[in-house]
Amino acid sequence: MQIGRVAGTVVATAKEPSLDGRKFLVVRILDLDAKETGAYVVAVDAVGAGVGEVVLVASGSSGRLTEATRDRPSDAVIMAIVDSWDIDGTTKWRKHDG
Amino acid sequence: MQIGRVAGTVVATAKEPSLDGRKFLVVRILDLDAKETGAYVVAVDAVGAGVGEVVLVASGSSGRLTEATRDRPSDAVIMAIVDSWDIDGTTKWRKHDG
Amino acid sequence: MQIGRVAGTVVATAKEPSLDGRKFLVVRILDLDAKETGAYVVAVDAVGAGVGEVVLVASGSSGRLTEATRDRPSDAVIMAIVDSWDIDGTTKWRKHDG
Amino acid sequence: MQIGRVAGTVVATAKEPSLDGRKFLVVRILDLDAKETGAYVVAVDAVGAGVGEVVLVASGSSGRLTEATRDRPSDAVIMAIVDSWDIDGTTKWRKHDG
Amino acid sequence: MQIGRVAGTVVATAKEPSLDGRKFLVVRILDLDAKETGAYVVAVDAVGAGVGEVVLVASGSSGRLTEATRDRPSDAVIMAIVDSWDIDGTTKWRKHDG
Repeated sequence: MQIGRVAGTVVATAKEPSLDGRKFLVVRILDLDAKETGAYVVAVDAVGAGVGEVVLVASGSSGRLTEATRDRPSDAVIMAIVDSWDIDGTTKWRKHDG
Repeated sequence: MQIGRVAGTVVATAKEPSLDGRKFLVVRILDLDAKETGAYVVAVDAVGAGVGEVVLVASGSSGRLTEATRDRPSDAVIMAIVDSWDIDGTTKWRKHDG
Repeated sequence: MQIGRVAGTVVATAKEPSLDGRKFLVVRILDLDAKETGAYVVAVDAVGAGVGEVVLVASGSSGRLTEATRDRPSDAVIMAIVDSWDIDGTTKWRKHDG
Repeated sequence: MQIGRVAGTVVATAKEPSLDGRKFLVVRILDLDAKETGAYVVAVDAVGAGVGEVVLVASGSSGRLTEATRDRPSDAVIMAIVDSWDIDGTTKWRKHDG
Repeated sequence: MQIGRVAGTVVATAKEPSLDGRKFLVVRILDLDAKETGAYVVAVDAVGAGVGEVVLVASGSSGRLTEATRDRPSDAVIMAIVDSWDIDGTTKWRKHDG
């Protein structure tokens, strides 16, 4: 999985019918210091993530193993909202520190 | 998914029979400011996208979960036509702004 | 899919039995101006492509959905021979222009 | 697979229910001299790896073929703890050498 | 597939039980002039490849379609030993030329 910050949303009226009602979120990928890497992915939301939240994104066929994405043509899914992470014993990012 | 602009078409008469009638579109990948990144992908169209339109492309096995691509040797599919996207509360691109 | 030019062949006598009789072709990846990018992939041929021809390559599990590759340990397949492509209304490459 | 060092953990309370109880570890990818490359991946642990240990990470659908990850939306799994590796007859890294 | 040279082995005693007895080889990826690119992958051996041999590596789910890797959490497999390859009519590498 990759760590990313939900930066916005994509509106797409014309889409594969199986994707109706799915929410496409723009996720900016972060490095381990919580800085943006410049990369992004558009992912379907499976956990009710909102703009500004830090999340985990699973890609490929694994991204389809949620209720929101099963058997749908989506190659990336937000499957967790991150509370914090630590590296070598130090907390690198925590939810309300932003 | 990646955001891209449909830039053209690929003509290929000799192809795997299961791909007969499928339309191969050249999609230039865009960054979040709607600028071309230099990367491209050739994708099968599942939603009737035309040249110039901005679309979402799903890759890998997920790209096969549409009527147009099911069980076919295609690794990328256009599964949505983008109307707009916003980043941090600002609309970055909208359909008729080009 | 990616666009590439068939540059040569790989000979491999010792291989997974299910790959016996399969032809491994070296494909140099092209950009949209038909220039080599420096990247390459070794792909199984599913459409009778010859050295010098420009082709489409499908990767990953999608690369197995041809008669030549079904249930075989191959992660890339040539599934179409390209006649031409155009970008923004201009033909960028055509078969006999080379 | 890639070789990496377990650098820390990600805490994520809100997640896909099928991932409850799974441990998300941050793995820094190593080169063959055991130096960090700067890349990382968040992987589910299938073998009881601890922070500081050097491991193998399998990505994509292969990452789901463990008890810990089967049918779950995870695209990377730690499936082995590395004792050592050698390159061209020389041991490049061994567990207690760090 | 990618072309690589088997550079060494990884020893990993603690691993997913389904991988017991599997041999993890370090493969350095080669360019078409048989020079190392700096990239590597750890792959399961399905064809009895030895250190120093030049091989083809299949990645992703395709890497599981061998006796050695079926239904196992491995994302890369050596599925052929290369005898030679040629580019534009010239032999670029042959087994005993090294």
